[in-house]
Amino acid sequence: MHPTITAFESSPDRGRGQARDMRVRWALEEVGQPYNVRLVSFKAMKEPAHIVLHPFGQIPTYEDGTLTLFESGAIVLHIAERHAGLLPDDANARSRAIAWMFAALSTLEPPVVELGMAMLFERDRSWYAERLPMLQDRVRVRLGELSRRLGAADWLDGAFSAGDLMMVTVLRRLHTSGLLDEYPDIAAYVARGEARPAFRRAFDAQLAVFTAASRS
Amino acid sequence: MHPTITAFESSPDRGRGQARDMRVRWALEEVGQPYNVRLVSFKAMKEPAHIVLHPFGQIPTYEDGTLTLFESGAIVLHIAERHAGLLPDDANARSRAIAWMFAALSTLEPPVVELGMAMLFERDRSWYAERLPMLQDRVRVRLGELSRRLGAADWLDGAFSAGDLMMVTVLRRLHTSGLLDEYPDIAAYVARGEARPAFRRAFDAQLAVFTAASRS
Repeated sequence: MHPTITAFESSPDRGRGQARDMRVRWALEEVGQPYNVRLVSFKAMKEPAHIVLHPFGQIPTYEDGTLTLFESGAIVLHIAERHAGLLPDDANARSRAIAWMFAALSTLEPPVVELGMAMLFERDRSWYAERLPMLQDRVRVRLGELSRRLGAADWLDGAFSAGDLMMVTVLRRLHTSGLLDEYPDIAAYVARGEARPAFRRAFDAQLAVFTAASRS
Repeated sequence: MHPTITAFESSPDRGRGQARDMRVRWALEEVGQPYNVRLVSFKAMKEPAHIVLHPFGQIPTYEDGTLTLFESGAIVLHIAERHAGLLPDDANARSRAIAWMFAALSTLEPPVVELGMAMLFERDRSWYAERLPMLQDRVRVRLGELSRRLGAADWLDGAFSAGDLMMVTVLRRLHTSGLLDEYPDIAAYVARGEARPAFRRAFDAQLAVFTAASRS
């Protein structure tokens, strides 16, 4: 039996792979673990059958035998702990890779999502023109710090890890903001992640859901 | 040799224990691990000697022998993995407790911090009156979902875990917002966390830093 994850039945980003199932798909592809996908509608996500799997009514979830998990970070960490390929063997390096997972979710993602949400939902508000530069600057601060740490390296700390996987998926949300153009080394880092065969397979799988839905 | 953590030399919340070193202190107290604290000024946090420990120039950091870590979530998880008392023995329950750590940081903390930042820094902006209810409602949605899952239980999933520790520290940031009053079961959950002897010891230790600084 393969694990089953959930994903949006109807892709909000039209298959650009920015929903959080992408992280889990990518992790499963990196470690070579086949998986099943159950698509969930926005309506069904808020119904009891899904809430029992995910208390906040979101995707992705992960079911494997008697285990049910939610939160993409927790699912990716669970996969990384049980398969080779996403965490270093050395104990210190392993802890540091996990620290980058948390940094992606706690330090980078909040200002990146806040900017993205404002660009989507506050464009017609009176305060948009004044708030936008403030939100962009918050993201720029983090990108500058990340760039300084990355330096000339390919990945954040040694070999590619679950920390890079999470970080790249967070940074990809900036594609429409134009901010990555200001940090060519960060843009190149994201491109390295996107060029990995496992990323491509995961991306194509989530795109196929959108393509099939838009044909039907 | 005990591990060394960093904390603010000058408490921005005047010793209310909302800085992120509080999570690490609490975790160390729960598992009975003594620790050293190195206080860092806002200026020193942005200087090379600290940036090498924390790429984003923040606190807390964690140093233990040859290991240096940043991100409070990663540090708490590292402590929980190496000491009994913060994660269940059962593998599935352990993964679920870690999922609650990620939920605290990824799903609860962003809207909670966004509300807190707006209340601190946007009070005099033209948009404050219009945005505040929107930010409050985003937090209410999560508190309602959390309350539904908690039900009549003391903790989120079985015994107290690192997941509860992280969640309580995030929810404590709502004390000044008044929103916890609308969810008595969540307020009681936070109070249960704050009543734990390990929490009290951690709280008193960070308060002592502020008290000493304000006397000098």
